[in-house]
Amino acid sequence: MAKKPEGESFVTEITPRSHDFSRWYLDVVRRAELADYSPVKGCMVIRPYGYAIWELIQQALDKRIKATGHVNAYFPLFIPEGLLMKEAEHVEGFAPQVAYVTHGGGEELEEKLIVRPTSEAIIGTMYAKWIQSWRDLPVLINQWANVVRWEKVTRPFLRTTEFLWQEGHTAHETEAEAEEETLKILDLYKETVETELAMPVIAGRKSESEKFAGALRTYSIEALMGDGRALQAGTSHNLGQNFAKAFDITFQARDKSVQHVWGTSWGVTTRLIGAAIMVHGDDSGLVLPPRVAPFQIVIVPIGRDNWRETVLPRAKQIQDTLVAAGFRVTLDERDERPGWKFSEWEMRGVPLRIEIGPKDIEKFQVLTARRDTREKAGVPMDGLAARVREILDDIQRNLFERAVTFRDEHTQRAASYDQFKDLLEGRPGFVIAPWCGSAACEAHIKTDTQATIRNIPMSGAVPAGTCIRCDSPAQSEAWFAKAY
Amino acid sequence: MAKKPEGESFVTEITPRSHDFSRWYLDVVRRAELADYSPVKGCMVIRPYGYAIWELIQQALDKRIKATGHVNAYFPLFIPEGLLMKEAEHVEGFAPQVAYVTHGGGEELEEKLIVRPTSEAIIGTMYAKWIQSWRDLPVLINQWANVVRWEKVTRPFLRTTEFLWQEGHTAHETEAEAEEETLKILDLYKETVETELAMPVIAGRKSESEKFAGALRTYSIEALMGDGRALQAGTSHNLGQNFAKAFDITFQARDKSVQHVWGTSWGVTTRLIGAAIMVHGDDSGLVLPPRVAPFQIVIVPIGRDNWRETVLPRAKQIQDTLVAAGFRVTLDERDERPGWKFSEWEMRGVPLRIEIGPKDIEKFQVLTARRDTREKAGVPMDGLAARVREILDDIQRNLFERAVTFRDEHTQRAASYDQFKDLLEGRPGFVIAPWCGSAACEAHIKTDTQATIRNIPMSGAVPAGTCIRCDSPAQSEAWFAKAY
Repeated sequence: MAKKPEGESFVTEITPRSHDFSRWYLDVVRRAELADYSPVKGCMVIRPYGYAIWELIQQALDKRIKATGHVNAYFPLFIPEGLLMKEAEHVEGFAPQVAYVTHGGGEELEEKLIVRPTSEAIIGTMYAKWIQSWRDLPVLINQWANVVRWEKVTRPFLRTTEFLWQEGHTAHETEAEAEEETLKILDLYKETVETELAMPVIAGRKSESEKFAGALRTYSIEALMGDGRALQAGTSHNLGQNFAKAFDITFQARDKSVQHVWGTSWGVTTRLIGAAIMVHGDDSGLVLPPRVAPFQIVIVPIGRDNWRETVLPRAKQIQDTLVAAGFRVTLDERDERPGWKFSEWEMRGVPLRIEIGPKDIEKFQVLTARRDTREKAGVPMDGLAARVREILDDIQRNLFERAVTFRDEHTQRAASYDQFKDLLEGRPGFVIAPWCGSAACEAHIKTDTQATIRNIPMSGAVPAGTCIRCDSPAQSEAWFAKAY
Repeated sequence: MAKKPEGESFVTEITPRSHDFSRWYLDVVRRAELADYSPVKGCMVIRPYGYAIWELIQQALDKRIKATGHVNAYFPLFIPEGLLMKEAEHVEGFAPQVAYVTHGGGEELEEKLIVRPTSEAIIGTMYAKWIQSWRDLPVLINQWANVVRWEKVTRPFLRTTEFLWQEGHTAHETEAEAEEETLKILDLYKETVETELAMPVIAGRKSESEKFAGALRTYSIEALMGDGRALQAGTSHNLGQNFAKAFDITFQARDKSVQHVWGTSWGVTTRLIGAAIMVHGDDSGLVLPPRVAPFQIVIVPIGRDNWRETVLPRAKQIQDTLVAAGFRVTLDERDERPGWKFSEWEMRGVPLRIEIGPKDIEKFQVLTARRDTREKAGVPMDGLAARVREILDDIQRNLFERAVTFRDEHTQRAASYDQFKDLLEGRPGFVIAPWCGSAACEAHIKTDTQATIRNIPMSGAVPAGTCIRCDSPAQSEAWFAKAY
């Protein structure tokens, strides 16, 4: 048996962010053991450290989804091909990305099954069965699931053939209620992502060409990554009556007439993990907001040869104290140099490091080191948990503010098409410009600059003047950016 | 548009349990809105009420899995066909049940993908990559996922083509550690199922013919359903080095030699929900143990026409009090008769009903009604939450004890093969008998009686005398039963 090559258990270099952002991203994902490539083309493994971030995002989001009256359920992974075909735009949008199951239990299937790329078709079919009367409405269901969309070019978390997400699917009596729900969820997503991931987002409406296949209107939240490219971080769709008509989801209304329900659907995915990496990370690796950090604190014992006897017991006491106070804490008692441990945990983005050595024990204190600012400070043992809470809150706040500042510094307004193109050639970010609303101009801009309309501000205000590209009157402002 | 037939929102009859257990089960699943059939053959929809039970089971189990040092991760849904083929017994066991993806992204795939029936193959492949040294061991990973095993005859929760489960996969330095892990998890499963689902189980080792395809030894917990048939409620496998050899999972040992890891895998599934229905349910429908009941308490306001003004405000106060005390509570304020609401929530298995009417308000009390014993009692408003806690604890205990009594009453010992066959013909349940250990006898017994060896007691004690069926000396006792 040949000895295997040495693996990933040693700190190796991470490509500097400024040097090659894309390479840096992949290095961080791999080195911090967030994800790994699998033998299945386009599919990744989410490793325990990455999955723990997802669990924290899930918990935070699930709580909010339930607090707004939604319940979770689970629908089948497979969808008979015929069902997907029922909504014309929907099938057109998803058919090229679909994986087909053709054989099961040793036999060829009579009807091919698709692996869900999204669940409107199967859920709509069930809603048609469950909903009879206006009394059954609204139906407010969410599911946490895996979905599959065949991708040619993949990148861990950001674009993979299989990914994890939540998908909400609701049915309402009136158009107004469906729109209210769509926007309520958009707000919920914005608040969750900003609060938990410390990631500022702009909320707005998608253009016709960027909306969900089969929706009436799609809204999104968009974040700006550290390289100035935008990333769609969540979408909320007002489906109108499109799916209700395709799947015959009707109800007896208060006036006894039979009507189609009004639908919504909405989702966020594991790509949020990728977004958090790209918003907060630096040349040393990952920087995690405390609220979604698997470990908020790492304790590193410092000392001479006998540190296991002299320092470790105190380090364990500190861990116990902090765990009891509700923090997620790890204590690194491996036989490695403290310096090695420092860079290891910095690379893994742990928000706060606590160092404890013989002198600290004498002085009844610890040394704290923040991941975000690298600021170090002595903190007395008395009241340690309360002080740690303050520091972590401050890190969470600081990361958000830093990201807002970066976003604002990388958001510009264009007054002419030449300036517009220059801005998108130069320092990247959002460019706000008036737009006539035509798909032709939108497509032309994309060809010229690679930038797409990320979304259209919620205000709906019509700016004075003409479209940034043509002479037609502007219909709205739009946020343009190159995007992931 | 034709008006749809009236749906499931009216209380209709449930087939009596004693009359037709199987029909009763399906009625309960449908009427309590736990699950529904889907347009995908063999796949079910887990409706919100059923899924909420699963979430409570998940939380309880996940907490214990983490407390014993395991971490969660996520591995791909698809497995290249070639990987499944690597472990000979494994492929033989699973190949007939596999679903194949043959086309993706509009093209025929070069290598067919199977939809995971279990994840040893894909996880083993990753472990081979991740594990280098004894320092990397143990690896203790769990995943919550959907899996697919093609089934010809299906029944909601008990046997469906797609189901939800958790699957733990661990790698260890030594055989002893792997065995310790396998048994630790078996204990964990037993404790969880008995504590949370109030479902007594027997823990033991599976016979060779019933063990997991590719395992060295399989252990299981087995519960007895209300119709006297057994149900496998969880399994824990010592994989030995079988998968390590098939997938080349090696490590450099402390003595510098290169060795194969020792593996385990273990899982429980959504069939636990089916088991809970069949252990505790009665002719009125579901009976849920408080610890896994989506609603532990239903409050039904009682009163004349003006109950919305007179009684509802107090009912809401009570709800607030009980929610603040940590209970899961629903308040039924629909415009239906109280009697209708009583049977509706009894059918749905809510452990405790609280009735509140004008006279109760005067007397500053409520009326409680237990689902398990149907016992009613007045409870003063003062100290209500504490009293409710006592009642719910008592219900949980009573359900467990009732199930233990039933199990004990339906567990018998056979002294001769004629008696053995009689017992399995007559009142069903477990029959304990000495067994020679041969697969031939086991198969013969199955043909004669339809009963299988559920498991072999952990004691390992060798009984005196001969096998229940042949003249060879007994190797062990075995628990036989007809099973789901």
